[in-house]
Amino acid sequence: MRFIESLRWRYATKRMSGKKVPQEKVDIILEAARLAPSAGGLQPFNILVVKDPELLKKIQPIANNQPQITEASHLLIFAAWDDITDSHIDRVFDHINKERNHTSEAQEAYKNRIKASFASRTQEERFQTAARQTYIAFGIAIAAAAVEEVDSTPMEGFNNAELDKFLGLKEKGLRSVTLLALGYRDVENDKLASQKKVRRPKEELVIELN
Amino acid sequence: MRFIESLRWRYATKRMSGKKVPQEKVDIILEAARLAPSAGGLQPFNILVVKDPELLKKIQPIANNQPQITEASHLLIFAAWDDITDSHIDRVFDHINKERNHTSEAQEAYKNRIKASFASRTQEERFQTAARQTYIAFGIAIAAAAVEEVDSTPMEGFNNAELDKFLGLKEKGLRSVTLLALGYRDVENDKLASQKKVRRPKEELVIELN
Repeated sequence: MRFIESLRWRYATKRMSGKKVPQEKVDIILEAARLAPSAGGLQPFNILVVKDPELLKKIQPIANNQPQITEASHLLIFAAWDDITDSHIDRVFDHINKERNHTSEAQEAYKNRIKASFASRTQEERFQTAARQTYIAFGIAIAAAAVEEVDSTPMEGFNNAELDKFLGLKEKGLRSVTLLALGYRDVENDKLASQKKVRRPKEELVIELN
Repeated sequence: MRFIESLRWRYATKRMSGKKVPQEKVDIILEAARLAPSAGGLQPFNILVVKDPELLKKIQPIANNQPQITEASHLLIFAAWDDITDSHIDRVFDHINKERNHTSEAQEAYKNRIKASFASRTQEERFQTAARQTYIAFGIAIAAAAVEEVDSTPMEGFNNAELDKFLGLKEKGLRSVTLLALGYRDVENDKLASQKKVRRPKEELVIELN
């Protein structure tokens, strides 16, 4: 299936069948998210993967009792770093330099510019930057699921603070920002499955400046 | 090329050759962004497309004089709505209902829940929500470019307020959040072209909860 066709095929699945997604497909979706670009290459987030039905059942009330939570095969929790510190930045750059077996003055200067840039912001602003980077990976994961013909539901409608508490994310330096349920559409019970996909028209969305 | 291979092939291109990207490929990238999901289906953003070399030259100093701005074929400016109002929401839902030739009490109730949810936040919070949705489309556009074997540079390093002023975005109810230069890598002059792609290891990024 071509990429655009995959994106047309996908929709925010409201009811899933419970059928399991093969682990190799979940791994491809996670790998796509891992390959997503991020400011300064920091990838300031983690992805938590839940597939245990008992745990999903406990998460469901924190997510407005949405049925996909327990009908899904896997739930991906995208959690941004609650701060971006010098030690985070050092760790990422040390890893990059080690993998490339190379460092340079230019690379050091780049790292220091990034540190200075984040140091000039508040912690909340640094978290917001981390959250935005998380959304790039989230978008690419959604696309990867569609390419793999796996249904998915992007979900922002949940109690972030409660989920963070339940999963001990604060202690990990994380704040949940969005969820992606992975599974297969239940065509009979999902009214949205047969509805026309509607988007704002191109003429309204895209502005040609010349 | 398979999707994951496309994502491995892409990198944040630092130098471009000036070669033009065929319009049909630009259109595919824009269509991918248009198909991106968003909270409540609002798609609270616009994408401005710049290809005029003179205009790109004027934008370059606002974007840290990065060479890709003028070496690119097209520059996509992702700009989020500076607010999400009832009239925005009405317009989107009217369009959806018209396209589906259908409305329902459930759909009306859903619209009203979305309105109430946004009404309970500050304008800045509504803008932040709009910006995050913009990043989903941004991620999918980056992936689409890779699939089309078009190089791209995601760029947050620019003076948002100055760009908004230069392009009159405030008057349009928009705030620029990120840029995507589209073009072709200049392998000879781009040191990054030959460097190993490095990402945080999966074991560090992904946390299996069961």
